[in-house]
Amino acid sequence: MAEAGAGFSNRYPSFYGPEGRLILVDSALEAVNRGSTTIGIKTASFALLASHIKPARPLMEPTEKVFPVDGHVGATGSGYIGDILQLIDELRLEAQKHRLSFESPIDIGSLTKHLGGYLHNYTIYAVRPQAASVIIAGVDQTGVHMYQVDPSGTYFRGAGFAIGQSADSALDAIQRDYSADMTVEQAVQLANKAIEKALGERSIVEIGLATAKEGKFKKLQ
Amino acid sequence: MAEAGAGFSNRYPSFYGPEGRLILVDSALEAVNRGSTTIGIKTASFALLASHIKPARPLMEPTEKVFPVDGHVGATGSGYIGDILQLIDELRLEAQKHRLSFESPIDIGSLTKHLGGYLHNYTIYAVRPQAASVIIAGVDQTGVHMYQVDPSGTYFRGAGFAIGQSADSALDAIQRDYSADMTVEQAVQLANKAIEKALGERSIVEIGLATAKEGKFKKLQ
Amino acid sequence: MAEAGAGFSNRYPSFYGPEGRLILVDSALEAVNRGSTTIGIKTASFALLASHIKPARPLMEPTEKVFPVDGHVGATGSGYIGDILQLIDELRLEAQKHRLSFESPIDIGSLTKHLGGYLHNYTIYAVRPQAASVIIAGVDQTGVHMYQVDPSGTYFRGAGFAIGQSADSALDAIQRDYSADMTVEQAVQLANKAIEKALGERSIVEIGLATAKEGKFKKLQ
Amino acid sequence: MAEAGAGFSNRYPSFYGPEGRLILVDSALEAVNRGSTTIGIKTASFALLASHIKPARPLMEPTEKVFPVDGHVGATGSGYIGDILQLIDELRLEAQKHRLSFESPIDIGSLTKHLGGYLHNYTIYAVRPQAASVIIAGVDQTGVHMYQVDPSGTYFRGAGFAIGQSADSALDAIQRDYSADMTVEQAVQLANKAIEKALGERSIVEIGLATAKEGKFKKLQ
Amino acid sequence: MAEAGAGFSNRYPSFYGPEGRLILVDSALEAVNRGSTTIGIKTASFALLASHIKPARPLMEPTEKVFPVDGHVGATGSGYIGDILQLIDELRLEAQKHRLSFESPIDIGSLTKHLGGYLHNYTIYAVRPQAASVIIAGVDQTGVHMYQVDPSGTYFRGAGFAIGQSADSALDAIQRDYSADMTVEQAVQLANKAIEKALGERSIVEIGLATAKEGKFKKLQ
Amino acid sequence: MAEAGAGFSNRYPSFYGPEGRLILVDSALEAVNRGSTTIGIKTASFALLASHIKPARPLMEPTEKVFPVDGHVGATGSGYIGDILQLIDELRLEAQKHRLSFESPIDIGSLTKHLGGYLHNYTIYAVRPQAASVIIAGVDQTGVHMYQVDPSGTYFRGAGFAIGQSADSALDAIQRDYSADMTVEQAVQLANKAIEKALGERSIVEIGLATAKEGKFKKLQ
Amino acid sequence: MAEAGAGFSNRYPSFYGPEGRLILVDSALEAVNRGSTTIGIKTASFALLASHIKPARPLMEPTEKVFPVDGHVGATGSGYIGDILQLIDELRLEAQKHRLSFESPIDIGSLTKHLGGYLHNYTIYAVRPQAASVIIAGVDQTGVHMYQVDPSGTYFRGAGFAIGQSADSALDAIQRDYSADMTVEQAVQLANKAIEKALGERSIVEIGLATAKEGKFKKLQ
Repeated sequence: MAEAGAGFSNRYPSFYGPEGRLILVDSALEAVNRGSTTIGIKTASFALLASHIKPARPLMEPTEKVFPVDGHVGATGSGYIGDILQLIDELRLEAQKHRLSFESPIDIGSLTKHLGGYLHNYTIYAVRPQAASVIIAGVDQTGVHMYQVDPSGTYFRGAGFAIGQSADSALDAIQRDYSADMTVEQAVQLANKAIEKALGERSIVEIGLATAKEGKFKKLQ
Repeated sequence: MAEAGAGFSNRYPSFYGPEGRLILVDSALEAVNRGSTTIGIKTASFALLASHIKPARPLMEPTEKVFPVDGHVGATGSGYIGDILQLIDELRLEAQKHRLSFESPIDIGSLTKHLGGYLHNYTIYAVRPQAASVIIAGVDQTGVHMYQVDPSGTYFRGAGFAIGQSADSALDAIQRDYSADMTVEQAVQLANKAIEKALGERSIVEIGLATAKEGKFKKLQ
Repeated sequence: MAEAGAGFSNRYPSFYGPEGRLILVDSALEAVNRGSTTIGIKTASFALLASHIKPARPLMEPTEKVFPVDGHVGATGSGYIGDILQLIDELRLEAQKHRLSFESPIDIGSLTKHLGGYLHNYTIYAVRPQAASVIIAGVDQTGVHMYQVDPSGTYFRGAGFAIGQSADSALDAIQRDYSADMTVEQAVQLANKAIEKALGERSIVEIGLATAKEGKFKKLQ
Repeated sequence: MAEAGAGFSNRYPSFYGPEGRLILVDSALEAVNRGSTTIGIKTASFALLASHIKPARPLMEPTEKVFPVDGHVGATGSGYIGDILQLIDELRLEAQKHRLSFESPIDIGSLTKHLGGYLHNYTIYAVRPQAASVIIAGVDQTGVHMYQVDPSGTYFRGAGFAIGQSADSALDAIQRDYSADMTVEQAVQLANKAIEKALGERSIVEIGLATAKEGKFKKLQ
Repeated sequence: MAEAGAGFSNRYPSFYGPEGRLILVDSALEAVNRGSTTIGIKTASFALLASHIKPARPLMEPTEKVFPVDGHVGATGSGYIGDILQLIDELRLEAQKHRLSFESPIDIGSLTKHLGGYLHNYTIYAVRPQAASVIIAGVDQTGVHMYQVDPSGTYFRGAGFAIGQSADSALDAIQRDYSADMTVEQAVQLANKAIEKALGERSIVEIGLATAKEGKFKKLQ
Repeated sequence: MAEAGAGFSNRYPSFYGPEGRLILVDSALEAVNRGSTTIGIKTASFALLASHIKPARPLMEPTEKVFPVDGHVGATGSGYIGDILQLIDELRLEAQKHRLSFESPIDIGSLTKHLGGYLHNYTIYAVRPQAASVIIAGVDQTGVHMYQVDPSGTYFRGAGFAIGQSADSALDAIQRDYSADMTVEQAVQLANKAIEKALGERSIVEIGLATAKEGKFKKLQ
Repeated sequence: MAEAGAGFSNRYPSFYGPEGRLILVDSALEAVNRGSTTIGIKTASFALLASHIKPARPLMEPTEKVFPVDGHVGATGSGYIGDILQLIDELRLEAQKHRLSFESPIDIGSLTKHLGGYLHNYTIYAVRPQAASVIIAGVDQTGVHMYQVDPSGTYFRGAGFAIGQSADSALDAIQRDYSADMTVEQAVQLANKAIEKALGERSIVEIGLATAKEGKFKKLQ
């Protein structure tokens, strides 16, 4: 009967592995965990996105990792570049749709929820779940907000995130030195330090910033 | 011929395992059983939803686990967050549709039945059955109601539910101390106690409440 | 060549097992045979549906097992609750369609035939055959009628049915004591006795009744 | 290379088995061969359909096995009841369509050809070929006709058919005693005798009859 | 690496076998080679189709094997009867379409080409290639023509064809005795002789004939 | 982990084999390499297509291998006849479309490019890549052109091509004796010689010719 | 349990391999790495595309490897020719669409992004990811730009690229001798030298050039 059981379990397009794990989403997360170390730091005044830029070969420009989505919101991601680019496109499209329908900027929470549902959809059918985690940062009528969205479509809000390679080390560093009243300059330093700690060496970092004061998201440097 | 039999049984997208079990739904339930311990307690005067909030890392807000669906009804769930979020969306959409069509709030039983059919559909085709159990609580013209809906689309009504990790321990605790004339405060205490018992330690709990008196569902704290 | 044969037989989505058996329908029937013991008893004057209510945990209401379909007809089922609920929905929808089209109640035979075709369809394509047997009882212009419909879409008419766990024992009990001129009270007693015999203990039973005199189906108690 | 060959042959949804056999149709035929013994006897004056009625359990009516299709034609079948019922439905629908389009009864050959094409279609795609052989008998402008249609969609005309369990024995009996000028009564006796011979015991038999004189098909008894 | 190769070759719905053979078409041809021995003989004056009629059981009429397609053209086939019947239907439909569109009989080459494309289509997608070879014979404005079409959709023109069981022996016999100025009677004799030689015994043969003189196709006897 | 790797690689409809090879296209090419030896020779004045005609059995006409496509262009192919015939149809259709849209003959390069895209499409989805290489020859406003198109959709232009069985030998022979100012007669001789060399014996060859002078493609003999 | 795990992981169309790698995209890249060595060199004044032309057999023209896309932009690729040709078509179509919609030439970045999304789409569904890397070079209002796009849909900008066989050696050579103020002649020499170094021998190279001065892309020689 054990064998019959094994026979049975072989026959179905299976989305679940042992203990009910989502096996393809787990694979997507493995890919995310090999991606560029990427960080988000948020206070009441600003949200900062920082992503490690893997040193490109000479004569090649490194791929952009921090993306403006709309005037008031930006995003970054870790995982497969192709997947990240598609998700950024989806975010931009949704933000534009909202502007056209409501003649106002989309609030950061709705934008995040949209991406979560979009990613979740890929976990239900026989297609490939996207291998990218995304951090969204922006400012809307209720203030500065930052969210992380994972390949399963799960999202959560926070003041400090780290995704990609050695994300745990980076997150430790952020948590140790984070202060709710830190300045942008201090946050930039902290982001660099956290990524350096995660990778074990000084690294090039791309940075984007949303401030409550300006109500805008822009890339630094 | 035994071998021929084995050969035969290998060839078909199989929804059933030994003894006619629904193998993917069983996997979904395994995932639910690893989810946050979540509780519902109902009397004639109120229905209370309580879900364990897994301690998030510092600087991250824990994911919301208790959701308003419409003014008079809310829901909570245990399982994969992405799946729960989609089911909450479906509940909200159905409640809005009802308001638009009939200009009245949807009754809790119809809302539950809709979610049951929605989940059941995922068990018939070659897609992924959703890995989430949901507890719905609300108040309509016939009083206070509370339902549990499982990944198979099965639903049932009750005065005390527990889903997620160590749900059995939590349910034992509720059954032992439940009283039909308990106050909201007593119910909150009981919910905390039951979750504490299930997890073996004091935990953060998110709570939602529907009361007959107000005819509304709202989150506490 | 024997090996070539084995090779060949491995490649096709197979609906048939050895001896031409419908393997998924057999699995569905296995699930039905683990369902609640459910009974139908019919005379010229009435038809009675009775389903064992598995004792729910304290504070949970047991799932409804006997369902009104239209004013003159009801149904019960055994198997997966989610599947039963969908089939009841389909029956109600068909009964309503008939009322709208013909301004008269649907006759019990047509309603049954519709469910048979609906279930049969699930046995042809690569979807999951429904794991539920249903007993339909009602009264129309030609009198009182009772039918059983199985997962394969097969249906038959009769005066005594039993489905679900230990259905054979229950059916034996019914056949031994059935009388064509028994009263409703005697039929209720017989239903309880048959279910008790099947399960080996006194059990809670939900009952529905269609009578020629009233021309209606209603649930008892 | 032999192994490479085996590897190759494993990869394709295969409709064919060794020697070009249709493996699913063969499975369907196995199911037909386990069905009720069913017989057709035709002379210039009448065509008679007779199907063994498996003794139902007490209180259950046996399933109908001989079906009027239109006023001038009827059918019977052997195999899975659910499949037979669907095929009878298809025959009735086709006969009604013809009446509506041409305001005349469909001729028996066209009706048969339609069913053959309908069954054949199930052998081409990745669906389940129907497990039922059908005998069609009727009377049209060119006289009395009787056809047998098999799961592969093959049909042939004749004066004596037997399908289902021990069909060969039944057919032997018919061939031995058939006479082109036999009366209906003699044919009924022969049908009963043939089924008795096939099953080794006296059996209940359902009978339908089409006569040239009346130009009608009706069930006997 | 050999193993990696084997692993790779297991994963794809494969239409090709070793040496690029079309594996399902080969299976279809195996079925054709077990079909009734069927022959075509053509001169400038006529084309004759002859198909062995397998002796049916007493009281059953043998299945028709030679089919008029339109007034000026007919066809026969070998393989699965259900498949042959569908192909004949397709031929008749195409011939009727041509008459409706162009108000003239279809030329034999175009009709053949249509069937070739129709059969070829079944070899591209994941459906079942038809298991039938067909011989088409007819007369059009350019004279008498005869074609053979195989399951792969390949067709060729000729004066002598044989398909089905022991087709090679039958073809040898035809080639030995064929004469370009033979009469219809001689051709009938040759057809009978060739089938007899193939099967090793005198057999019943169904014959169809298209003549240049009449410009018609008709069945003999 | 090696085993896990093997496990992983088993699960996906795989279009690629080791080293990124297109496994089904490779199979299609194997079939092409077993096809009739087929040759193209082009100078500034003419393009000549020549295909070996496998000796048909007596009384059968060999299949046409060189096809006019439009007045100014023709094609030949090697591989499965059914596939070649479909590709020729596609070429003719495209040429006709061009005439209808632009009222001018299609240029040879565009026609070739269309066939390349058509064939390429079969390599992307789960259908059967066509097993035929095609040589297209014609004359348009820019002169005489000749192209070869392979099952992968790759095409290239040239003055000497050989496809099918022993194509390499045939191509060697052409390359050795080709001269840019050879006459049609010399090219015919060379084609025959090359095919003879490839097959090791004198063979029947079908020939088509496009000349700059006439601006037409026609078959010889 | 390890085995159960293996059993589970066998059942799903898997897009991911160990460590979350995209297995089919990896296969596509393997094919790209066997393609023609292809190079891009860009300065502020020009962008040069150079692709090794594999020596064709005598009498065959080598396949074009550098393609004009629109007046101001061109592209080259390495991998399967059929795939490259389709991607070039897609680029041309997108450039034409932009001209029609906006009456201006498409900017090089948008064109690249379109191709990236197009390629990415093939990595999500059960189709074949395209086996081609493409280098796009052109000049628009913001200057001269050059991009590389890979089968995963990832793209990046740069001044020196190499793809195909021994791309690493070629890229080394470019990086060593690249100068931001080199002339076109120097870049052509460098391209030839890099390809020679990669292949170990002097090779034929096809070259395309976009210059800021002319604002055009054209092929050299």
